[in-house]
Amino acid sequence: MCGIVGVYCENESLTPHITYYALFSLQHRGQESAGIAVAGNSSITAHKGMGLVTQVFDERILSRMNGKASVGHVRYSTTGESRIENAQPLLVRSKVGSIAVAHNGNLVNYWGLRSGLEGEGRAFLTDSDTEIIAQLLSACLLDYDTVEALKILDSKLLGSYALTILVNDTLIAYRDPLGFRPLCIGEADFGYVIASESCAIDATGARFIRDVKPGEAVIIEDGKLEFVRISESKRRAFCVFEYIYFARPDSIIDGKSVYGVRHTIGRILAKENPVDADMVSPVPDSGTTSSIGFAQESGIQYLEALIKNRYVGRTFIMPEQRMREFSVRIKMNAVRSNVEGKKVVLVDDSIVRGTTSRKIVDMVRAAGAKEVHFRVGSPPIIAPCYFGIDMSTREELIASCRSIEEIRRTINADSLAYLSLDGLLEAVGIDENELCLACLTGKYPIPVPGEKCVR
Amino acid sequence: MCGIVGVYCENESLTPHITYYALFSLQHRGQESAGIAVAGNSSITAHKGMGLVTQVFDERILSRMNGKASVGHVRYSTTGESRIENAQPLLVRSKVGSIAVAHNGNLVNYWGLRSGLEGEGRAFLTDSDTEIIAQLLSACLLDYDTVEALKILDSKLLGSYALTILVNDTLIAYRDPLGFRPLCIGEADFGYVIASESCAIDATGARFIRDVKPGEAVIIEDGKLEFVRISESKRRAFCVFEYIYFARPDSIIDGKSVYGVRHTIGRILAKENPVDADMVSPVPDSGTTSSIGFAQESGIQYLEALIKNRYVGRTFIMPEQRMREFSVRIKMNAVRSNVEGKKVVLVDDSIVRGTTSRKIVDMVRAAGAKEVHFRVGSPPIIAPCYFGIDMSTREELIASCRSIEEIRRTINADSLAYLSLDGLLEAVGIDENELCLACLTGKYPIPVPGEKCVR
Amino acid sequence: MCGIVGVYCENESLTPHITYYALFSLQHRGQESAGIAVAGNSSITAHKGMGLVTQVFDERILSRMNGKASVGHVRYSTTGESRIENAQPLLVRSKVGSIAVAHNGNLVNYWGLRSGLEGEGRAFLTDSDTEIIAQLLSACLLDYDTVEALKILDSKLLGSYALTILVNDTLIAYRDPLGFRPLCIGEADFGYVIASESCAIDATGARFIRDVKPGEAVIIEDGKLEFVRISESKRRAFCVFEYIYFARPDSIIDGKSVYGVRHTIGRILAKENPVDADMVSPVPDSGTTSSIGFAQESGIQYLEALIKNRYVGRTFIMPEQRMREFSVRIKMNAVRSNVEGKKVVLVDDSIVRGTTSRKIVDMVRAAGAKEVHFRVGSPPIIAPCYFGIDMSTREELIASCRSIEEIRRTINADSLAYLSLDGLLEAVGIDENELCLACLTGKYPIPVPGEKCVR
Amino acid sequence: MCGIVGVYCENESLTPHITYYALFSLQHRGQESAGIAVAGNSSITAHKGMGLVTQVFDERILSRMNGKASVGHVRYSTTGESRIENAQPLLVRSKVGSIAVAHNGNLVNYWGLRSGLEGEGRAFLTDSDTEIIAQLLSACLLDYDTVEALKILDSKLLGSYALTILVNDTLIAYRDPLGFRPLCIGEADFGYVIASESCAIDATGARFIRDVKPGEAVIIEDGKLEFVRISESKRRAFCVFEYIYFARPDSIIDGKSVYGVRHTIGRILAKENPVDADMVSPVPDSGTTSSIGFAQESGIQYLEALIKNRYVGRTFIMPEQRMREFSVRIKMNAVRSNVEGKKVVLVDDSIVRGTTSRKIVDMVRAAGAKEVHFRVGSPPIIAPCYFGIDMSTREELIASCRSIEEIRRTINADSLAYLSLDGLLEAVGIDENELCLACLTGKYPIPVPGEKCVR
Repeated sequence: MCGIVGVYCENESLTPHITYYALFSLQHRGQESAGIAVAGNSSITAHKGMGLVTQVFDERILSRMNGKASVGHVRYSTTGESRIENAQPLLVRSKVGSIAVAHNGNLVNYWGLRSGLEGEGRAFLTDSDTEIIAQLLSACLLDYDTVEALKILDSKLLGSYALTILVNDTLIAYRDPLGFRPLCIGEADFGYVIASESCAIDATGARFIRDVKPGEAVIIEDGKLEFVRISESKRRAFCVFEYIYFARPDSIIDGKSVYGVRHTIGRILAKENPVDADMVSPVPDSGTTSSIGFAQESGIQYLEALIKNRYVGRTFIMPEQRMREFSVRIKMNAVRSNVEGKKVVLVDDSIVRGTTSRKIVDMVRAAGAKEVHFRVGSPPIIAPCYFGIDMSTREELIASCRSIEEIRRTINADSLAYLSLDGLLEAVGIDENELCLACLTGKYPIPVPGEKCVR
Repeated sequence: MCGIVGVYCENESLTPHITYYALFSLQHRGQESAGIAVAGNSSITAHKGMGLVTQVFDERILSRMNGKASVGHVRYSTTGESRIENAQPLLVRSKVGSIAVAHNGNLVNYWGLRSGLEGEGRAFLTDSDTEIIAQLLSACLLDYDTVEALKILDSKLLGSYALTILVNDTLIAYRDPLGFRPLCIGEADFGYVIASESCAIDATGARFIRDVKPGEAVIIEDGKLEFVRISESKRRAFCVFEYIYFARPDSIIDGKSVYGVRHTIGRILAKENPVDADMVSPVPDSGTTSSIGFAQESGIQYLEALIKNRYVGRTFIMPEQRMREFSVRIKMNAVRSNVEGKKVVLVDDSIVRGTTSRKIVDMVRAAGAKEVHFRVGSPPIIAPCYFGIDMSTREELIASCRSIEEIRRTINADSLAYLSLDGLLEAVGIDENELCLACLTGKYPIPVPGEKCVR
Repeated sequence: MCGIVGVYCENESLTPHITYYALFSLQHRGQESAGIAVAGNSSITAHKGMGLVTQVFDERILSRMNGKASVGHVRYSTTGESRIENAQPLLVRSKVGSIAVAHNGNLVNYWGLRSGLEGEGRAFLTDSDTEIIAQLLSACLLDYDTVEALKILDSKLLGSYALTILVNDTLIAYRDPLGFRPLCIGEADFGYVIASESCAIDATGARFIRDVKPGEAVIIEDGKLEFVRISESKRRAFCVFEYIYFARPDSIIDGKSVYGVRHTIGRILAKENPVDADMVSPVPDSGTTSSIGFAQESGIQYLEALIKNRYVGRTFIMPEQRMREFSVRIKMNAVRSNVEGKKVVLVDDSIVRGTTSRKIVDMVRAAGAKEVHFRVGSPPIIAPCYFGIDMSTREELIASCRSIEEIRRTINADSLAYLSLDGLLEAVGIDENELCLACLTGKYPIPVPGEKCVR
Repeated sequence: MCGIVGVYCENESLTPHITYYALFSLQHRGQESAGIAVAGNSSITAHKGMGLVTQVFDERILSRMNGKASVGHVRYSTTGESRIENAQPLLVRSKVGSIAVAHNGNLVNYWGLRSGLEGEGRAFLTDSDTEIIAQLLSACLLDYDTVEALKILDSKLLGSYALTILVNDTLIAYRDPLGFRPLCIGEADFGYVIASESCAIDATGARFIRDVKPGEAVIIEDGKLEFVRISESKRRAFCVFEYIYFARPDSIIDGKSVYGVRHTIGRILAKENPVDADMVSPVPDSGTTSSIGFAQESGIQYLEALIKNRYVGRTFIMPEQRMREFSVRIKMNAVRSNVEGKKVVLVDDSIVRGTTSRKIVDMVRAAGAKEVHFRVGSPPIIAPCYFGIDMSTREELIASCRSIEEIRRTINADSLAYLSLDGLLEAVGIDENELCLACLTGKYPIPVPGEKCVR
């Protein structure tokens, strides 16, 4: 998963700072690397680095980047291999000038496209699909104008691709025709902000205009903004997991408040799977919003069973092999005075592998809980995601080949219940045909080799 | 404010790791510097650095520290000047051997003691009261055994001082006779853990035994633990602010659950200051627990008006002077869909300067709230703390010379109410005579130059 | 200028270390960045960084690189822009597998080649001619075997290009047909070492075999070494400046000892331009060897007038603008006791801009010298280099448009004399037709736009 | 060994820069750590760090230090343990104010003094004798004026101690009564520079005034400089090793040019130990000056047999255990074309352990030399130094218990000869009674436990 940003700002020295704030508020979408490219007078300047936005940038670096248009990127490692070469935006130079590309998504036909280009004798400096996009776009721009080039590019790509692009000093944002990954736009006195989530628009002080539509491009040239339809598709495939887990709760995505969806998920979850208990607690932080809804619907007292250490981050090391058992205890701790002798409902957003859930249930029991009931704010995850969320392989997914009763026993809960698919759809409020539910149903909205496709 | 740890572990190579985990779970008590000293075979080895525990230590460093006894420290800058010289534990060498001191608290008679020692022609390498303690202890140990030395030391010190100390391979913990700062002890298969808060004992897998009593020392020598009474005082002065704000909610301090106290604060606050509203929201994260209690007592719906960026940390830079206005918006964002058209109650633990409160109220209003009512989980802070919590000068405290109505106008709330002192005492459940309430009453439990003392 | 290395070593874990030593002894050829690529079992691993070899690599990094074949590179910034993207070896992946390229030289037809490839719609991630070489080679290898591919590649390139290349686990070294930049090969028990200079072969304990001939490739596959003629040219263009300044004096380049050439330069310089003086001193370190020869031929006493600070490096900062006058004094100091009242001959290898020479002459005068005579171990530099040595623009070259008398006045010497071109040719001992003397004559051995070409 | 500096500069913002330049030119005296303390308006600011002067300081740091008086220090690790706590100047605060001490030397009675102070119950934060000096000085200044305090301090110290000290904004320099370590003073338009060696005075553009005399203090207060005699001693003990090896050749120490001494050493060495040979070469860089003198006296051709890698530094790592054999080869290389078939004389300044000498002789032989004769510019080192030069223990000194013939065989030379003590004295030109020759004679100028003392 990644977060992308595009900024157009009349005040040239302010542009990199606006981009920095926007990226900072998308930090939850990726912590591996961060980068900003700014289109200056005659060329594009880029700065990238490994780590958090605040670690990669400082005032000295930002103050050396000047220009009206910029794109930014935060990257979440999907491969495990963490290399500066893969940091974005990717900056290339071609006959049409400088091009910087920030990409959120994943091309399903990456190897096919690459193999085709390699067949022409080309060599690649990175292993990212962004390099493919940059090369294809460069070729298209050779013979066509921006709009035509985007159309040709789009026709070649299969998968998920929300993009912010600089072609010299023109800022382009584009969202794939199924709209897998979110993208929206805001307006401010200084210009425009395009971002993966509306919380980034809020952070810059801009006013949210609307979501970029699937298949739609935003082109900002010489301060003039244009919306252009590039591609049509009846089917939509908005990622349902953005609502369940990934997005920040204060974001509005495709017209739905993420907070609202999660709260409703909690309510429906309580209705679908009532439980006799003394308290409802989130698994922090992912279960917080849905557990509040659960408590309100069920009338059971909302009380935190677990406190999370706010300083746990990617820098945390688990020094000794034999200390691995501490791994969860270091990150969160049970509140004995809250759970002792109580029947506790724990609400989490989803269960991926189940190993952490087991440790949390055990921890709450060890703190004196009489019963521990687990409620999950999504249906079971049974299939992998090929569209940008790194969710482990099918084998690692605990629900891919286990019954709910088996999972309950594995995580050692007194009861376990998942939200129904219908419940989820009701909570999200978007037609099933406009969502990508592949990880929950195994039915993919576009063809993926070896998987079932249901358009 | 600081956090201190003492560990006795039979497995010598495990000792630094246990200390690391304990310090990590006290990270909220100080983020400026971190340090560990381990008593090895013939001498004490120390490692200290600026920054978070996870930044200062790695496996390579920990694996080079071996020994059964250790002390650790995390430091919160109280002065603004951030220097490695002030990092603790402070390691000194004297006639009796090596001494490492970790100190949480503040000596009220620091300058008097220092001036006395300087009068003997001594020079000091740091500006910390810990150096004074180390020098005095060294002198006492010259002529007396450990217990007598502690008694003499105690008789010279005035102020707050929770200490973990290594004298060669003897581990000593001591809590000042009024017990300003918390200190507790736990037991495990591997040995003992002493820490500022019980959450650190939990993190190491040890079992909580009890709080160290005011005036009591814990001495662990050759694996044998001894509790020794060093000093008597009828008066106690447990810091009430640990319950209000400072401690982690999953800690038990002097017999009281911090979570429980805060939850009750919320309930009493709701009873004392009812308000007609549509929703109750915490100011994250400090107001979370009390706002839950407030919502339950009042029956008003609990809903988050504000989402905090989880990546805000000490590393965050605010690059441009003109962007200072963004400072709060970058750290948290209002959830428009929750607050639009609503009467909102915001609950926070306390108000210090009031500047952030104002920005938050404005942000919630800008997101569409009809009314914003502010409720505070403590009485007004009217006087500075001299016992280890850096709370700004009296002039900076918004409540030191303003009426509640004036404060309400300053922070732009529709209504403002504080918890009463009686309400606070009821929530904490500790006799007024055993608490330090100086910041709320201006009456200090020990003499402080220029302040009123009420023992 | 750059330094390149190729290593084939049967002991897989030793390979990166051998490469490290070889690169370290070529450090004088480039201090901006360093990199090593090793061909492991299934792919090539590369590590690159800004700074010195010892700063970029440590045991931990080297120990993670395993394989029999490797290439290495040290880079000297020729552009002023110092970016990690330009560090080498450049690693690309193509249909034929992984390719790593280390390049010393400069393509005269870079923009032509790039423009051609851009015309096909390609985009480039770096601004280095090495990316062009990697792309062209990838394309050639698609349809041809290694030898044929090298022939086609060679036919497309114009300029100087000494290369060490990995194509999967095959190690290739190639030297352009005019042989601008040096390249030689050595043999050891462990395998083979190819390097820009023989001092790197010495450093690894290998035995020097011979220079790689212009137009010749060395191909090492499965431990078997093969010399293959790729291209023929009657003309040679060995860079004369390697002998004058660039190479280490302990290297043997194209059959000539660099030390021997410089020593003879000093002797001939003394014969051609005798001077009545009390002492001969080098300008350290570049003039050391020729000044020894000068002293011996002239019979004038050899005595150092100047001592260089051994810690001057690229990390040195000149903190205050107003302190720029100190720039030379900080780097070297006159030995007053040696020069006071003396007639001093200063010998340097060459004069580029003349600014440093002036400061040195002034410094020796200020230390009490009666007369200061300047002797230069090369003819005047009158034209820029397009083949890899960054020598400033023509305008900046003090001799491009000034008489020797004008230069003498500019640098404030009592007398000034340069070595004659005939003297230089005699010292080098290589036929004029086999050298590149372009910087001294303005006549270029291959066509360069806007310059005179004399093949 | 260490280097110290004291600067008084009327231009407050220039002071730290002047100190930086002076320290930079003393870098050869210590590379472990560097530090500067500047006396500003109301207090002393210090900055210290591990590594080279250029690594520890940058413009940002220097620009924040302002004041007229400063002291600086570069430290050479004498203990092997390399810790930031031991970096100097040491800054303390006492009744008389702030004191910063930079010390070059070693107290022979350190443990006696420390034990005395520990007997008073004092504890020490470092293991350096500088802390003792700072504590004693603080005590003395309590009751006495600067001059009296220095007299009392001096009476307590035994050993070598060249000091630059700030007492608030007063700059004090003091040299112990025997004058073990050098110290000199220069004058400039901006004020005064005091430094271990005159090359540092040259580097700042100041004019050398004279050496600070043994037992003499320089006190600069309010811009007024005063020389004060603190202590008398008929005996002097100027370290002879400063001339032989340690000091930079462009320095003048106690009236003698270091370059001149070394050149004469070479001449006398040639006269005392003639040899039939084809060439004379230095062991770079330590033997350079004396080998020039040797060549001129003997009439044998001066030619470099060895080239040193200019990038060898403290950062160099020797990655693999099995690669240790490369250790010398990496640092220097033989010039085969110079030594092949020749009888070579190698001249070095001294032999300490002999291990490097052996490797060098072998390397020159392997490059084809017919004979290798070794000449040493000092008598054999037979006893350890207690006055600040870390020279290994007596057991490690190859000459402490071996005949010259045994050493010759150990280093594998065809002949070996040392300079005679008389020859050394003649070259230095200072009376035997005014030098410390302890490392060469075993007779110490002050009492050292277990060693013979000859005053």
